[in-house]
Amino acid sequence: MPEQTKYVLSESEMPEAWYNIQADLPFDLPPVLHPGTKQPVGPADLAPLFPMELIKQEVSKERWIEIPKPVLDVYTIWRPSPLYRAHRLEKALQTPAKIFYKYEGGSPAGSHKPNTAVAQAFYNKEAGTKRIATETGAGQWGSALAFACQMFGIECKVYMVRTSYDQKPYRRNLMETWGAKVVASPSMDTNAGRTMLAQDPNCYGSLGLAISEAVEDVVTNPTPSKYALGSVLGHVLLHQTIVGLETIKQLELADAEADVLVASVGGGSNFAGLTFPFLPAKFKDPTSKLRVVAIEPAAAPSLTRGVYAYDFGDLSMMTPLIKMYTLGHGFMPAPIHAGGLRYHGMASAICELYRHGYIEARAVNQKATFEAGVLFARTEGILPAPESAHAIRGAIDEALKCREEGIGRTIVFNLSGHGHFDLTSYEKYMNGKIEDYVLPEEEIKKAQEALPII
Amino acid sequence: MPEQTKYVLSESEMPEAWYNIQADLPFDLPPVLHPGTKQPVGPADLAPLFPMELIKQEVSKERWIEIPKPVLDVYTIWRPSPLYRAHRLEKALQTPAKIFYKYEGGSPAGSHKPNTAVAQAFYNKEAGTKRIATETGAGQWGSALAFACQMFGIECKVYMVRTSYDQKPYRRNLMETWGAKVVASPSMDTNAGRTMLAQDPNCYGSLGLAISEAVEDVVTNPTPSKYALGSVLGHVLLHQTIVGLETIKQLELADAEADVLVASVGGGSNFAGLTFPFLPAKFKDPTSKLRVVAIEPAAAPSLTRGVYAYDFGDLSMMTPLIKMYTLGHGFMPAPIHAGGLRYHGMASAICELYRHGYIEARAVNQKATFEAGVLFARTEGILPAPESAHAIRGAIDEALKCREEGIGRTIVFNLSGHGHFDLTSYEKYMNGKIEDYVLPEEEIKKAQEALPII
Repeated sequence: MPEQTKYVLSESEMPEAWYNIQADLPFDLPPVLHPGTKQPVGPADLAPLFPMELIKQEVSKERWIEIPKPVLDVYTIWRPSPLYRAHRLEKALQTPAKIFYKYEGGSPAGSHKPNTAVAQAFYNKEAGTKRIATETGAGQWGSALAFACQMFGIECKVYMVRTSYDQKPYRRNLMETWGAKVVASPSMDTNAGRTMLAQDPNCYGSLGLAISEAVEDVVTNPTPSKYALGSVLGHVLLHQTIVGLETIKQLELADAEADVLVASVGGGSNFAGLTFPFLPAKFKDPTSKLRVVAIEPAAAPSLTRGVYAYDFGDLSMMTPLIKMYTLGHGFMPAPIHAGGLRYHGMASAICELYRHGYIEARAVNQKATFEAGVLFARTEGILPAPESAHAIRGAIDEALKCREEGIGRTIVFNLSGHGHFDLTSYEKYMNGKIEDYVLPEEEIKKAQEALPII
Repeated sequence: MPEQTKYVLSESEMPEAWYNIQADLPFDLPPVLHPGTKQPVGPADLAPLFPMELIKQEVSKERWIEIPKPVLDVYTIWRPSPLYRAHRLEKALQTPAKIFYKYEGGSPAGSHKPNTAVAQAFYNKEAGTKRIATETGAGQWGSALAFACQMFGIECKVYMVRTSYDQKPYRRNLMETWGAKVVASPSMDTNAGRTMLAQDPNCYGSLGLAISEAVEDVVTNPTPSKYALGSVLGHVLLHQTIVGLETIKQLELADAEADVLVASVGGGSNFAGLTFPFLPAKFKDPTSKLRVVAIEPAAAPSLTRGVYAYDFGDLSMMTPLIKMYTLGHGFMPAPIHAGGLRYHGMASAICELYRHGYIEARAVNQKATFEAGVLFARTEGILPAPESAHAIRGAIDEALKCREEGIGRTIVFNLSGHGHFDLTSYEKYMNGKIEDYVLPEEEIKKAQEALPII
């Protein structure tokens, strides 16, 4: 047999609890504030939107939160997911580094998103929710939630930004095949949508507007409805930790120890999923040599170029205020191809870890990212999502540094999804039509004019 | 833990030899004839198109053919593939049957095709081939070969039928990302293409013409070039048997014994892959209760409605003559959505097994197939390719029969690929725009007028 490529766990070896980093953080997280009163939000503020179990998870300090059996049961469709050793990529890079990647693209929706969508659908089902409404941009989150709702017999309504709805019908079709109702946002189904359409019947829509529509839908619908979010919030990050917990077991199988962890960041759930379970080692031992690197797009560089301030989570200023590194809630990222990373802010815990020096961050540009994605497809075979290609770029750069320094470090990254629905972006790259985008300083300054809010 | 869903083998448990059914067939296969001389073809006739190792495999009677280590090495990217127990589908059908499915959609190209593409690329590499040319319709086979050639550093040229090239750019982009050169057929790169374009500059192309172009390319190109085929031939079926060999091991893990095997058939490689390794049990024991069922589309029902005769493998009458159940090489199947099953004939060994009563065949129509595919996506989560949905339909019908009869049989089918590139077909189905197509008897009669050829 050739040298081992995949490290696979059996279903009986799947983690049975999520890891809650709040139990171990060596600092307190700043409270989340109510957008009206500017006072810390309490469970009652969130109850119209989320079932109580998820609200509890937001503030829990329990280290381990048991994964309910029906959630494990759905997880088995694609979990435990494989950890790969990237033999061919290493060879192409002529690096002494060992590169491992965890692959989350084998889920039905093709990314890590179902790890939390399934959990959220379950807790909603338990709480008697009959419908869940959400927003989606290109459709990654919407398709994960459509799948999860179908598994638990919950209606799913997705407000999909009009541009994507028209130009990227594949993920819409996928959601509909799983039984979700998908409407273009702005829609005629909400006041927010109708108001916008009255002003501009050809409005392209925006994620902020789609959030407004979903939230209005949830609080006004006669059927018991809740809202669901695919990143940023603490419970979302929590559900993703199964990724890192499996990775720890698989690295033991491979007799390897991570020197560098790499993951892409948009709102932070993919990054948290891989890295949080590894961080207690750094909390306990400040001399630990483990490096943890977040890769963000140069077009939305919240960690590397944002300011640390209280800000809204959304463009329409409806969400609670979160203390974070932010480009300003009014920031409109360039239309880069990694749609999942176009976000102005970042999950609170990740910002605090960055501020306290436990993790690093780097911004990478589009062409270098697609170059990495194509090299990966041609060596490892798997076509990566443009979001995941950011992590690949980061891992490749670390491996090239190992080559320069002649040091054989172990690099582990999260390949968060496949690129089967992103092939037009690859086509553009192959035809030289992908441009780099360096964000002008004035643009950040302008978007941050509203800050600090308190 | 919930009841087990997936049965997973480690890389060290992967089969290290393919199973060659020719060692055990209780009858001889009719010889393949030269299209000019009508005499049995010899190795020299095939040498311009295929490397000698593959030609040897066409006629070998060795029971086990060792899988070369570099092929196993690439297989580990997605193999061993999982065997699933379809708990949710069983529940939805209220059937006492146990349904298992082998999932081949986890390969980089998304179907079972890479099982043979990788092997063919390897043997070509060993024989000094620098380029491989092939044809593709919707792109399943072309993308598998593009991936495989990239893994072994061989140039890949794909003649893609013009209609698909224009209307289905995703698989073309995938091939290009893997470094293949893809041209629309008819092309200006061959005499066959130029002649056709001179007659009709807007010609849509056909698979037959694309084959002609690929073969002409191979025999005229100054760089040492070979041709590759994705189904029908013996060596292609051989390479797919790893599917069934793994399934046998996994059923043992599940402590289950198959009563009914189900697979879809176009040219036959997917069907052979799952079922051939199970057939020796039937050869040895004529009272064996194992049933083996081939599911073909009602629009191309070669086994159920074809005649048994020598016929060409292609429309352009360039291939050797094969004794098979055929609708006639001039038969032009309706443009159903399962493009991979639109074939007028069938692999020789499968036809002989059918003729001698070892296997059964059923034709299913489009709407019932998509209905099965959607039910599968909504219960098991995975979106199936329309080709694979034929097998799902067959398995569901067997499971419903079990319910009627109150018998808990074990049904095993091959889920040969995912439907990520077929979502426009699902959209049409969801919108009621998929039509059934019952083939008029006159149409078959007309296409078979040229038969028997000898």
